[in-house]
Amino acid sequence: MTELYEAIVEQAKSAKRIEKILAMKTTEEKNRALKAMASALEEDMERILQANREDVQTAREMGIPEAKIDRLILNEKRIRDMMEGLYSVAELADPVGEIDESWTRPNGLVLQKVRVPFGLIAIIYESRPNVTVDAAGLCLKTGNAVILRGGKEALQSNLALVRSLQKGLAAAGFPKEAVQLVERTEREAVDILIQLKEYVDLVIPRGGAGLIQRVVRNSVVPVIETGVGNCHVYVDQHADLQMATEIVVNAKAQRPSVCNAMETLLVHQSVAPNWLPDVVERLRQAGVEVRGCEQARRVLPDLPAALEEDWETEYLDLILAVKVVRDLNEAIEHIDKYGTKHTEAIVTQDQATAEKFLRAVDAAAVYHNASTRFTDGFEYGFGAEIGISTQKMHARGPMGLRELTSYKYIGRGSGQIRA
Amino acid sequence: MTELYEAIVEQAKSAKRIEKILAMKTTEEKNRALKAMASALEEDMERILQANREDVQTAREMGIPEAKIDRLILNEKRIRDMMEGLYSVAELADPVGEIDESWTRPNGLVLQKVRVPFGLIAIIYESRPNVTVDAAGLCLKTGNAVILRGGKEALQSNLALVRSLQKGLAAAGFPKEAVQLVERTEREAVDILIQLKEYVDLVIPRGGAGLIQRVVRNSVVPVIETGVGNCHVYVDQHADLQMATEIVVNAKAQRPSVCNAMETLLVHQSVAPNWLPDVVERLRQAGVEVRGCEQARRVLPDLPAALEEDWETEYLDLILAVKVVRDLNEAIEHIDKYGTKHTEAIVTQDQATAEKFLRAVDAAAVYHNASTRFTDGFEYGFGAEIGISTQKMHARGPMGLRELTSYKYIGRGSGQIRA
Repeated sequence: MTELYEAIVEQAKSAKRIEKILAMKTTEEKNRALKAMASALEEDMERILQANREDVQTAREMGIPEAKIDRLILNEKRIRDMMEGLYSVAELADPVGEIDESWTRPNGLVLQKVRVPFGLIAIIYESRPNVTVDAAGLCLKTGNAVILRGGKEALQSNLALVRSLQKGLAAAGFPKEAVQLVERTEREAVDILIQLKEYVDLVIPRGGAGLIQRVVRNSVVPVIETGVGNCHVYVDQHADLQMATEIVVNAKAQRPSVCNAMETLLVHQSVAPNWLPDVVERLRQAGVEVRGCEQARRVLPDLPAALEEDWETEYLDLILAVKVVRDLNEAIEHIDKYGTKHTEAIVTQDQATAEKFLRAVDAAAVYHNASTRFTDGFEYGFGAEIGISTQKMHARGPMGLRELTSYKYIGRGSGQIRA
Repeated sequence: MTELYEAIVEQAKSAKRIEKILAMKTTEEKNRALKAMASALEEDMERILQANREDVQTAREMGIPEAKIDRLILNEKRIRDMMEGLYSVAELADPVGEIDESWTRPNGLVLQKVRVPFGLIAIIYESRPNVTVDAAGLCLKTGNAVILRGGKEALQSNLALVRSLQKGLAAAGFPKEAVQLVERTEREAVDILIQLKEYVDLVIPRGGAGLIQRVVRNSVVPVIETGVGNCHVYVDQHADLQMATEIVVNAKAQRPSVCNAMETLLVHQSVAPNWLPDVVERLRQAGVEVRGCEQARRVLPDLPAALEEDWETEYLDLILAVKVVRDLNEAIEHIDKYGTKHTEAIVTQDQATAEKFLRAVDAAAVYHNASTRFTDGFEYGFGAEIGISTQKMHARGPMGLRELTSYKYIGRGSGQIRA
């Protein structure tokens, strides 16, 4: 029992202690707390920005790349966006207490399946301080306590944000232990947190593949794996090629750094010769570097060669691998081999081909004649998103408020016993 | 890479290879396979019984206790019960392909949430060979491949059963890799299986607390924790005491060896003096040994003392601990401290007290005026049960066919791209 272990356990215990208080709060009380949290951010804006300037300065001194520093920087607009996020979560329907099913057994026992909070959720993430506020708001709305563990480089910002959120909670009559930050920056703090099965009900890692895999491999607490998306668009021989061009450019270039962006384009051999030059031209105009398989390079000899590792890579960048395939089956086989079960799309006017693709491809989201970029809690109309699950247990695809709840069975009887 | 590792990986790979074939099978095809599996058990009955006699003989030679040997023994009736199980699973509705939700976004994208198989499920269990057939049937019906790992003492029986099941599968045109048994008896085989995240989508351990905890602690594959039930009945001051007696005797004595049996009785102080003597008398008639807290022993001085460890113990036997509590709150606190979030019940005629208990107690199933023994897939009308989950992720309480499925989002568009 190291001192670090004791410190983390003490936090988890203090959250566990107030779990029942949170679970019993009404929707109105929780909405009031969300608004009080937003007000506290507004009041404390200067203090938060000052703390953030310290983080940014330290990051610059440590030579952290500017792209990463950009994700770290807060300004008034970004804080107002966080506040907006809290207000909009307050507007959403509360899943807690919803009755999923209700039925009466022949013996008269009335059973209900009712949605309840998980209890205590741990969220482990990297540089963006907005995750701190987003995650706190979503967990609070669903009656869950949350322990947040952000990136070391954002520590001062996160401390300032959580201090304000706790002030808002207190003002609304909520225990401040409902939202806590792991202040210890040792890497081992995460390893300890994900062992505390007795206290933590669920862990959600958000960030790069390294972080996520470390949590998945080592956690004793149930985990929802999020994020990695090696997504494909398959352009079929019966595609509307103008539509295909628009979807492909959107899926790759509209926001290349996110997990639902396309990484490999699969093209039916019969449309490759005529269509590839057009779409590659459009992609290049959008700043995309295109790499091609041998057959693609027979159409466009100036394409750099795509290697085996290209099929495996989630670029998260303005780079695209193109592979010409014989038919639908080869497209599906390629996706089976290299896909990460995140998002896959087909462009075709042939209904039977589309349905076969939608059924056979194993991914959280599969689309016919639409961009891969739609796999998103807001685009699905959930009004919120805590991440995109790439596993099959509990939640798959975009996770909103409902996915932050569990259920229990309530049985109401009149003395029923089992025969 | 040991030879054992290679052998287990080869099995998992071969199951993974046929996953898509299973996922695409129609309900009718799967039902035909279930019936063919049952027919094969009937044809091979003598061979199965012979294999089972070998297991039983070995177990006797090894000095395994008769209670455990009883669980191992097969006879014609037990095999016919397994066949019945397969026929009844064929009768149940198929969750695969069910549409949970369907909605259209403002941009015209039509989204559906559709139920799909997990893929490959690993089930790790102990002596009862009937689990082999039950689990195979439930997984097949839900389009999942299954790798079974039973107890060493049941190996010959399980080998014979799986050989018959595979014969049935083949007769129905299904790949035999859909149902496989880990034939290797080394303990490490389990440790390897639960690391194979690339192939195995879900692990369900069934058996004693030791087995379950080993799997939960070491698995990289998502696990559903099942089973341990330290269940309570709280008899309130406003209880119908005759009803309370019937429920308590049923919850304890009707089948004490199962996880939904009551282990501790909590009694409101105001009813203890008059009611405890009656209920203890009834429990003793049913063969139950009753242990009491200090206050209970003031009412019934001949009760042996219940110690701290009694509150913690899942007896799974004809033993009951009794604790007199001050009020509802003390009952809830006791359950919070010692319960395993399986099943908890209150007996009272006061509606407000009942509702407070049902809401505040954190368990998979909570009952008002009914026996704890109802937490069961068949009693809930699911028609099947693969286990009772005591965790909050994915499935809670009795798990039927639906809980052996995941979902995917299908989006049908007409060229939608993201703005």
